[in-house]
Amino acid sequence: MSAPKKVVLAYSGGLDTSIILKWLQTEYGCEVITFTADLGQGEELEPARQKAELLGIKPENIYIEDIREEFVRDFVFPMFRANAVYEGLYLLGTSIARPLISKRLIEIAEETGADAVSHGATGKGNDQVRFELSAYALSPEIKVIAPWREWDLSSRTKLLEFAEANQIPIAKDKRGEAPFSVDANLLHTSSEGKVLEDPAEMAPDYVYQRTVNPEDAPDTPEFIEITFEKGDAVAINGEALSPATILTQLNEYGRKHGIGRLDFVENRFVGMKSRGIYETPGGDILLEAHRGIEQITLDSGAGHLKDSIMPRYAELIYNGFWFSPEREMLQALIDESQKHVTGTVRLKLYKGSAKTVGRWSDHSLYSEAHVTFEEDAGAYDQKDAAGFIQLNALRLKLLAVRNKRVKS
Amino acid sequence: MSAPKKVVLAYSGGLDTSIILKWLQTEYGCEVITFTADLGQGEELEPARQKAELLGIKPENIYIEDIREEFVRDFVFPMFRANAVYEGLYLLGTSIARPLISKRLIEIAEETGADAVSHGATGKGNDQVRFELSAYALSPEIKVIAPWREWDLSSRTKLLEFAEANQIPIAKDKRGEAPFSVDANLLHTSSEGKVLEDPAEMAPDYVYQRTVNPEDAPDTPEFIEITFEKGDAVAINGEALSPATILTQLNEYGRKHGIGRLDFVENRFVGMKSRGIYETPGGDILLEAHRGIEQITLDSGAGHLKDSIMPRYAELIYNGFWFSPEREMLQALIDESQKHVTGTVRLKLYKGSAKTVGRWSDHSLYSEAHVTFEEDAGAYDQKDAAGFIQLNALRLKLLAVRNKRVKS
Amino acid sequence: MSAPKKVVLAYSGGLDTSIILKWLQTEYGCEVITFTADLGQGEELEPARQKAELLGIKPENIYIEDIREEFVRDFVFPMFRANAVYEGLYLLGTSIARPLISKRLIEIAEETGADAVSHGATGKGNDQVRFELSAYALSPEIKVIAPWREWDLSSRTKLLEFAEANQIPIAKDKRGEAPFSVDANLLHTSSEGKVLEDPAEMAPDYVYQRTVNPEDAPDTPEFIEITFEKGDAVAINGEALSPATILTQLNEYGRKHGIGRLDFVENRFVGMKSRGIYETPGGDILLEAHRGIEQITLDSGAGHLKDSIMPRYAELIYNGFWFSPEREMLQALIDESQKHVTGTVRLKLYKGSAKTVGRWSDHSLYSEAHVTFEEDAGAYDQKDAAGFIQLNALRLKLLAVRNKRVKS
Amino acid sequence: MSAPKKVVLAYSGGLDTSIILKWLQTEYGCEVITFTADLGQGEELEPARQKAELLGIKPENIYIEDIREEFVRDFVFPMFRANAVYEGLYLLGTSIARPLISKRLIEIAEETGADAVSHGATGKGNDQVRFELSAYALSPEIKVIAPWREWDLSSRTKLLEFAEANQIPIAKDKRGEAPFSVDANLLHTSSEGKVLEDPAEMAPDYVYQRTVNPEDAPDTPEFIEITFEKGDAVAINGEALSPATILTQLNEYGRKHGIGRLDFVENRFVGMKSRGIYETPGGDILLEAHRGIEQITLDSGAGHLKDSIMPRYAELIYNGFWFSPEREMLQALIDESQKHVTGTVRLKLYKGSAKTVGRWSDHSLYSEAHVTFEEDAGAYDQKDAAGFIQLNALRLKLLAVRNKRVKS
Repeated sequence: MSAPKKVVLAYSGGLDTSIILKWLQTEYGCEVITFTADLGQGEELEPARQKAELLGIKPENIYIEDIREEFVRDFVFPMFRANAVYEGLYLLGTSIARPLISKRLIEIAEETGADAVSHGATGKGNDQVRFELSAYALSPEIKVIAPWREWDLSSRTKLLEFAEANQIPIAKDKRGEAPFSVDANLLHTSSEGKVLEDPAEMAPDYVYQRTVNPEDAPDTPEFIEITFEKGDAVAINGEALSPATILTQLNEYGRKHGIGRLDFVENRFVGMKSRGIYETPGGDILLEAHRGIEQITLDSGAGHLKDSIMPRYAELIYNGFWFSPEREMLQALIDESQKHVTGTVRLKLYKGSAKTVGRWSDHSLYSEAHVTFEEDAGAYDQKDAAGFIQLNALRLKLLAVRNKRVKS
Repeated sequence: MSAPKKVVLAYSGGLDTSIILKWLQTEYGCEVITFTADLGQGEELEPARQKAELLGIKPENIYIEDIREEFVRDFVFPMFRANAVYEGLYLLGTSIARPLISKRLIEIAEETGADAVSHGATGKGNDQVRFELSAYALSPEIKVIAPWREWDLSSRTKLLEFAEANQIPIAKDKRGEAPFSVDANLLHTSSEGKVLEDPAEMAPDYVYQRTVNPEDAPDTPEFIEITFEKGDAVAINGEALSPATILTQLNEYGRKHGIGRLDFVENRFVGMKSRGIYETPGGDILLEAHRGIEQITLDSGAGHLKDSIMPRYAELIYNGFWFSPEREMLQALIDESQKHVTGTVRLKLYKGSAKTVGRWSDHSLYSEAHVTFEEDAGAYDQKDAAGFIQLNALRLKLLAVRNKRVKS
Repeated sequence: MSAPKKVVLAYSGGLDTSIILKWLQTEYGCEVITFTADLGQGEELEPARQKAELLGIKPENIYIEDIREEFVRDFVFPMFRANAVYEGLYLLGTSIARPLISKRLIEIAEETGADAVSHGATGKGNDQVRFELSAYALSPEIKVIAPWREWDLSSRTKLLEFAEANQIPIAKDKRGEAPFSVDANLLHTSSEGKVLEDPAEMAPDYVYQRTVNPEDAPDTPEFIEITFEKGDAVAINGEALSPATILTQLNEYGRKHGIGRLDFVENRFVGMKSRGIYETPGGDILLEAHRGIEQITLDSGAGHLKDSIMPRYAELIYNGFWFSPEREMLQALIDESQKHVTGTVRLKLYKGSAKTVGRWSDHSLYSEAHVTFEEDAGAYDQKDAAGFIQLNALRLKLLAVRNKRVKS
Repeated sequence: MSAPKKVVLAYSGGLDTSIILKWLQTEYGCEVITFTADLGQGEELEPARQKAELLGIKPENIYIEDIREEFVRDFVFPMFRANAVYEGLYLLGTSIARPLISKRLIEIAEETGADAVSHGATGKGNDQVRFELSAYALSPEIKVIAPWREWDLSSRTKLLEFAEANQIPIAKDKRGEAPFSVDANLLHTSSEGKVLEDPAEMAPDYVYQRTVNPEDAPDTPEFIEITFEKGDAVAINGEALSPATILTQLNEYGRKHGIGRLDFVENRFVGMKSRGIYETPGGDILLEAHRGIEQITLDSGAGHLKDSIMPRYAELIYNGFWFSPEREMLQALIDESQKHVTGTVRLKLYKGSAKTVGRWSDHSLYSEAHVTFEEDAGAYDQKDAAGFIQLNALRLKLLAVRNKRVKS
């Protein structure tokens, strides 16, 4: 790979990406463009602009954008249509944000004529894979610079020395080692490393940042209603809201009631296990509600097919293959199923749980006329069940006859 | 089908199966053998014996058995090895009990020379299918009598008239209509019908029988440890226990903390939707714990394969195909995966939730040496990730090149 | 079910459906509308009109239609996009025609105000299921009359007596028993029953009707080129042709070269095994060609996903669920994959086989630059493979370490 | 990685692996142990011994073994139980041999105290992955030396110079470039590269080495019978034979009749497409026969489940994951299905095709009593089909009612 001339850097404004910024300038002598996105991580963006300027980035090379609506509308919601969970429990909060960041990096590279992009993910994690697969899928000729895999700044001490040597301001609280590492966006906060590295040990309370401890949540349940159209949430308690606003409000409900905490050991795509603490307050509520509305609007054929491909779909997103033909094929299948996933779910929020307690829809397939224990006025002829069972049993009977015959 | 001569009836001792007992005698003039099982439903069995005798069943034709250990060891535990849930949420508490009852019905029929078995499931539900597919799979020549599909006792009034006309004692509380219908065993209690038929309406509190309301559960969390060997729970808090004893104790923990409540609309195999309230106090804890121990003892290849076939496995159990070659094939796959699923999980029980907060095992695949944020002494070479990503990206790059070429 | 007033009958003009026609008139006293379709079965349709008139059907109630183009365009081609084969070998030639016939029956019923449809499939086969599931899916209130499940004309003798008693003309060759039963359309001919019922016995030569015996096929191979656009065949040897014309021509090539014969024992949806002789001359060629063009235009992610869902898709079509949400979801997935399945395949036809010998496309993903044994000018860095392997191996190494540790 | 001290080399005796042998000695100054296996590739092994000695390998360090029986019994046959084909057509002939070679390399390394193994696969192909994943799975601490990824002998000229400089004998026909590259074992021969690199061009006749051209095959069909026990072939024409003998004989039949040729473009695990010519004469016959015996001995539940997981199983073998938990889990599933796959298949071999024309078994599930067009004496009640269809249709009807209601 020839040396990059102009690099678009995913820049948070924090110490690590500031060091990367400077390292790119010194190592490659290249022009750096910074991209800082508001994905709902809950941090001010203006300090990132000031810091970028301080590090010598030209104002026209500083991109700062609020992409929360695009994030929820085009990434989070399509994923929730699938009820996607990774390894049974993880709602993919970090995974789903990476392809969008890469998409913007590539778009800015194309606008500015940059020949490379760069990110601050380490060589041990999944995020490097997600950033880079997305980048290459969108721009096959792009160069990707992953400083953590290249440089020799392999200890905290070396990083701080580099920062000091390059006049990078160091916040007081960054002098010492952080007790764990954090990623956040509108869908979730993840914490991992350091004090969390022993999966036998309970995570300390101070790790949790997005949710109150269920013990400290209100002693009285709260009930909310979420309305869906074609599989996407469109209103809370009857008020129509934009995608990002819905997720923001659900996060507030979840935070208050201590919903969405997960202590999890997962299999990384790069081959090792890691332990993370995830908080997905609004996501947990949304998943429960989406399942609730599907219960009455999807038939079993559609629902079971969705369930059967979901693990593969979640794995693709986890592994970084959002921009791949197979993810798009599965999305086509999922979206086809959601045409009638329209209606309203009522949920009870209480001390760490969100539970469906009612659901209704003009699109409902639930037929009280059929299921009733009362007289059903001929809606269903119980005698049909005899034939149904006989033909389902036929092959089992033939097997039993064969197995007895051959053994004896 | 020729008329049955001797019938083994799954007999609860309640009003409905007593009516069936008498109806079999009068309709077919056949000898009736009663089978009453303790599956952990929480009812005394001796009254069933007395009632059977009262209805003229010979003592040697009354079979009363405690099959709780067999139930948990050979049915519940194998199913939990798969983390089986139906349609995302239901732990299959009713489904998994039916094949065992059929198995005993058929064994008793073979011992006693009976040519038929009978059950009290209606023609609208799944249980008829589960009973009968199991029966035919084990005994292809057996006759199955399903009175609810045959007789004309189609209303409560007609049933009570039949009971009175045949000197069947009617408990006072059975005179009126029950407000909902219940099935129970050691794994769960389900309630459905009547007051629960509108899925928009929240289930009334009095429906719940196995768990306290989370609001009434202790205000302080409780922590327990469950130990697994080869995928099965073998001890609680370090005390080795039999399968049924473990589930019984977990039920007690779950009841106390309001764990395992589910308000659910499901797709029946017979083609309609129904709404049920399920309580699976011990099951919810066990599922969470089993996932917790798998997190550190299963590798991703095994885990993802299990996840991908789980929906099919759960569907088979739900639909009544426990005794089928495909369920046995899937079980062989699942059991193969559990050889090292051995270790201990620590859980927090609080106000409706059971959550893993720690797990450890001699069989752990978690490698702190690999995952650490600290120096890893060469356990992992971050530069390997570059090649890993390049080759995973290659086809995506080729796609991108193609797609750009052809469009333009 | 109340008695039907007006019935649309799938009418071939043959003896059996003529008997059904008369039986419907006499049994139910209802008006009968006949629908006779040209699906490429290779029979004249006008005799069916004359016979219907003879049996008293009013001219305006006789529907005769050539639906070959719709059949191939909307049913056969979408299915071939999936490379669908049932149980490894069967190209679903009968299965795929049934939903189209039902669709037209229902449409005619709606146009004419008929309240029922009827077909000549027996109660043992799959076709009754396919006809009726399609009918109900399109018109939930429709009545379906399946005379073979209802009447008592259970022997050849009784059928002929009924025919004679009702002045139904009987062709001379129908007096005796046919040695086997046939279904045919543009995609295939199936033969089953009678002389074919012993699956150990080789099918006699006279069973084959659509293909020459490979031994009698030309001694010289013939080469043809098939061009695809978005997954569908659009031209043969460079000549653009309509869907039905393409299949017709491929049938001619296949017939000549003895291609597409299959001796098969399959599992019917109704629970029994049956043995059929299938001839799918054009279909075999088309499947081979479609696989050939996919080889260079689909990437592995798309191809492997398609392969993994194909058996389920084929099973749905076989079982009669063409008009179901899950088939439509799978079709959306498959169609999404075919956007670039455009290009040309060269095939060698010889003595029973059609084999791809070359393929090319503007949409090709094949990169000689990457795969070459020669110098590749940096297209591919072999050193990347080391990292790729190391990270794929990591979990296997961790497993090996664990397994050695725990055993010892 | 520290330098290897003792290396076990997969040694064919050919020029390339002889160069590797010498390169290992000179580059690393390490002791080399050669392992040469008879996998049925059709070459004498003694020349390899002589050449190894000539290159200075001590006699006790030369391992030459006939592992054909192990190859077929423990690798080929288990794979054929699954009817495994990769991407619809490829019988995995190369893929399945690699794990066995690695297994022996590792066993020899353990016996001799070697700390490394080495192979001659290039950095572009799948074989490096298969060799190395197998090696690491069996011996996590082993070093693997892949000279093609390390050295700078990147052209034919450089290789020959190195050979001459190191007194490695060069066969006359190796002076020029081979027109394509070959791999062979008892299951198949593959040819790729050079003259085959353009997938549009028909492969020249001289590429085929294991089969006669179908045009040159006998003009008269030949019929053979293959007997299976529990899924494995055990006899041909009634003569019991060992696994390797069976495959050898089937190869002879296949060669004679021109069976098993495949012109194929596949997706390599490393991300690129490649074109290969495969000849699998015995394998094609065996696959057809195995499908034939499964047709009457497997029920639909077992068969459809096998079909649905087959693509994943084949992909695992192709990608090199033979020694992985998920392959072993799938094998457990497959083997569970084969308990009754016992019986005999009759095949017609003619001009490139092997086709099942009859099959019979004591374990047959085929029931003429059920399927017959004649009177079936009550084996099957056609009226059962009505109920079967009604309940299968119920959800489709409810969908149709809903879809009409909501649209209007």
